[in-house]
Amino acid sequence: VRIGIIGCNAAGISAASAARKNDRKAEIFLVESEEVAAYSRCGLPHAISGEVTDFANLIVFPRSYYKLMRLDLRLRTTAKSIDLKEKRLVVEYEGKEECLQFDRLVLATGSNLFSPPARGMELAYHLRTIADGKGICAAAEASSSAVIVGGGLIGLEMAVALRQKGLKISLVEMLPQIAPNMLDSDMAQILQGRLEQRDIEILTGSTIQYVQREAKSSNIVLSTGSMKADLVIAATGIRPNTELARSAGLRIGESGGIWVNPRLQTSVEDIYAAGECVELLNFITGRPVLSQFGTSAVRSGRVAGTNAAGGYATMPRVLNSAVSKLFETQVGVTGLTESQAEKQGLTTISGIMGGKTKAPYYPGSKNIFAKLTFNRENMKLVGAQIIGEEEVTQRINMLSMAIKGGMTVWDLELAETCYTPPLAEPWEVSLHEASQSVLAKMKNRKN
Amino acid sequence: VRIGIIGCNAAGISAASAARKNDRKAEIFLVESEEVAAYSRCGLPHAISGEVTDFANLIVFPRSYYKLMRLDLRLRTTAKSIDLKEKRLVVEYEGKEECLQFDRLVLATGSNLFSPPARGMELAYHLRTIADGKGICAAAEASSSAVIVGGGLIGLEMAVALRQKGLKISLVEMLPQIAPNMLDSDMAQILQGRLEQRDIEILTGSTIQYVQREAKSSNIVLSTGSMKADLVIAATGIRPNTELARSAGLRIGESGGIWVNPRLQTSVEDIYAAGECVELLNFITGRPVLSQFGTSAVRSGRVAGTNAAGGYATMPRVLNSAVSKLFETQVGVTGLTESQAEKQGLTTISGIMGGKTKAPYYPGSKNIFAKLTFNRENMKLVGAQIIGEEEVTQRINMLSMAIKGGMTVWDLELAETCYTPPLAEPWEVSLHEASQSVLAKMKNRKN
Repeated sequence: VRIGIIGCNAAGISAASAARKNDRKAEIFLVESEEVAAYSRCGLPHAISGEVTDFANLIVFPRSYYKLMRLDLRLRTTAKSIDLKEKRLVVEYEGKEECLQFDRLVLATGSNLFSPPARGMELAYHLRTIADGKGICAAAEASSSAVIVGGGLIGLEMAVALRQKGLKISLVEMLPQIAPNMLDSDMAQILQGRLEQRDIEILTGSTIQYVQREAKSSNIVLSTGSMKADLVIAATGIRPNTELARSAGLRIGESGGIWVNPRLQTSVEDIYAAGECVELLNFITGRPVLSQFGTSAVRSGRVAGTNAAGGYATMPRVLNSAVSKLFETQVGVTGLTESQAEKQGLTTISGIMGGKTKAPYYPGSKNIFAKLTFNRENMKLVGAQIIGEEEVTQRINMLSMAIKGGMTVWDLELAETCYTPPLAEPWEVSLHEASQSVLAKMKNRKN
Repeated sequence: VRIGIIGCNAAGISAASAARKNDRKAEIFLVESEEVAAYSRCGLPHAISGEVTDFANLIVFPRSYYKLMRLDLRLRTTAKSIDLKEKRLVVEYEGKEECLQFDRLVLATGSNLFSPPARGMELAYHLRTIADGKGICAAAEASSSAVIVGGGLIGLEMAVALRQKGLKISLVEMLPQIAPNMLDSDMAQILQGRLEQRDIEILTGSTIQYVQREAKSSNIVLSTGSMKADLVIAATGIRPNTELARSAGLRIGESGGIWVNPRLQTSVEDIYAAGECVELLNFITGRPVLSQFGTSAVRSGRVAGTNAAGGYATMPRVLNSAVSKLFETQVGVTGLTESQAEKQGLTTISGIMGGKTKAPYYPGSKNIFAKLTFNRENMKLVGAQIIGEEEVTQRINMLSMAIKGGMTVWDLELAETCYTPPLAEPWEVSLHEASQSVLAKMKNRKN
């Protein structure tokens, strides 16, 4: 069989590796429009900040890997159209078109950047590729200030990266809070305070009107005033890249991603999809969602590649767990926030708790804040948000498991955790104390 | 009502606090034979090492807490016998006996030290109380070497604490591996290597014959040779202190702990038990076990205290999760080890994996080793062991949740975790990679 994969980043390379593992003889080709394949997009802010010393370090697999795995990688090659009848993919390389025959195809076409329609924003820098990252690095060298437009995770990570390079930073977010897709406003407040303490100016509820390029710097006009900055960066989100799928007549889901079944087959039998371009199902609501995270990209890539090569795998429903490191602050989320859950029609009850990560008498104990949200109907955990200074990642993973295990507030109230003074508290803030605060709230409401 | 609690450490004080929360009017008294109440036993090795600068820091609650909560704390008071008929507790204080009336009683009598019957070992130091800890500290000042007898968690933590104080350390374990109740031999090997690298001499499969006190040091004669050391420490385990319960005719369970029902009622209606002296049920096997950890002490204390005060709570079955920090190494466990599971009659399949805690290109990535054990019959996770240099605690908690959620190797193979290069890998060693190694093993066996 001949398996074609469009896109060679997290999802595409995972699909290719899984396909090879399931079929040692298949011919596998990968079509990638960029000059470099399979690098860590999530690592870009850390290469800009300098923590990762070279952008080349972000490349996950050396060329020898592709040889070893017998993967025909075609860089600087753009997929133009799919001929479903003849099972041919039309690609363009150096201005010339070519037809590639396939038996099965995996679409890992990723996302397109979304830019706000404000005049002048088309000149702003954005971060998607290694080339973008290098461009920002070069521009930052010649700049002493930057405005970041967009207060989502990428915007926040860019703000931190450029602050670490010494630039004066202002971050502008249209909505009344930062990280609006990730945190409730109460938790976003805590995060905002921490970033402000590290000298990042944050303007929420502020819309960009236009940007005017001047001699060296730009004049940024907002709904709430105006400011000058040498560097303007748009971090206003991404949209699934579904052009190829649409033009081939594949079904597009209500979230805007390519519709797939649990085996990640699209509406056409031999065409699979994975990564940011795909629509998945939310674990809690069962409803279609996008899941534009590296973690979903590698998982869906593996599932699609396994199935495309004749194996069997299904994609689990997603919690959209995410974590980020912003200076010393770690912020993580899993499941639904309170406001997301309420929007989905759930009645919820939440508990928010602050405390320490280890025995208070042990030196080096760190701060941690956690919010747990439960479905009021059955008291099952539906979401967790944590802001803290250590071990946030695995705490979020613990709570993800609790959600997937269908655990209730009564399960969590007394749940067993391991304990030793240098590493933990006997009652964990993000688990027991937040749960107990919910139980106390319920009791008070009854009385 | 009048609630009596025997023992005021982790379990006793938790019971008292829970009882007060459930009944604002109850009279509550606590009987404690030591001079200090409610301090962190688990913190003792860290006060000996000097990381915690003062033993007094280990005391969890100031005297004002007892006043505020209206808890009648009676220190240096020993419970002598229970008169079930008259509901009277006989105690001794300063040589005088007294009778205390109770309506309900919570036994939190803890454990007794177990000493090997070898001649001369009765002179060895042991670690149970603050007084013991101070004694060891003083002796260590005048010593340049120590032998620790017993390679369980306390023995290992004592070895590390005294090594940190500059003593030359030898650790003697009767069984062929260290941490025999916690780790399989393959994982114990990894831990042993790390401790040996930090200059702790470890002798496994070696039994103590006798100890001969000489002028300044002792001569320790083992089944495998002999050695000299200034300080001899017995860390040969604890046994539930059930004397009071036995003499009152309460039922003792097959594990040697006090038998209780899920509400932690003993065989006598108004008598509850909690902490190290109690017998709990193992989550996986459903069989009676001891659970002599701080984490079970505070949970069982809370459950017993709630019920004793007329509330309702049940004690969850236990996984006996534990974690310890030994120099930079963190070692954690939950559920059954492979050898424990096999001894319990389960057929198992395990996967062991080593790797990195975060993206390999990100500076400061640490080592981690994990072993997962599955029940071969239904492929559910039954146990996890982790040795690593960061975030082991919450990884163990994540895996505890996975066990409690009844998750199989197929659930874990693709389980969602959160990811960002400075904090994690997209595929987690202790979860996905260890699970995938099990699946690969199953596939190879079939072929």
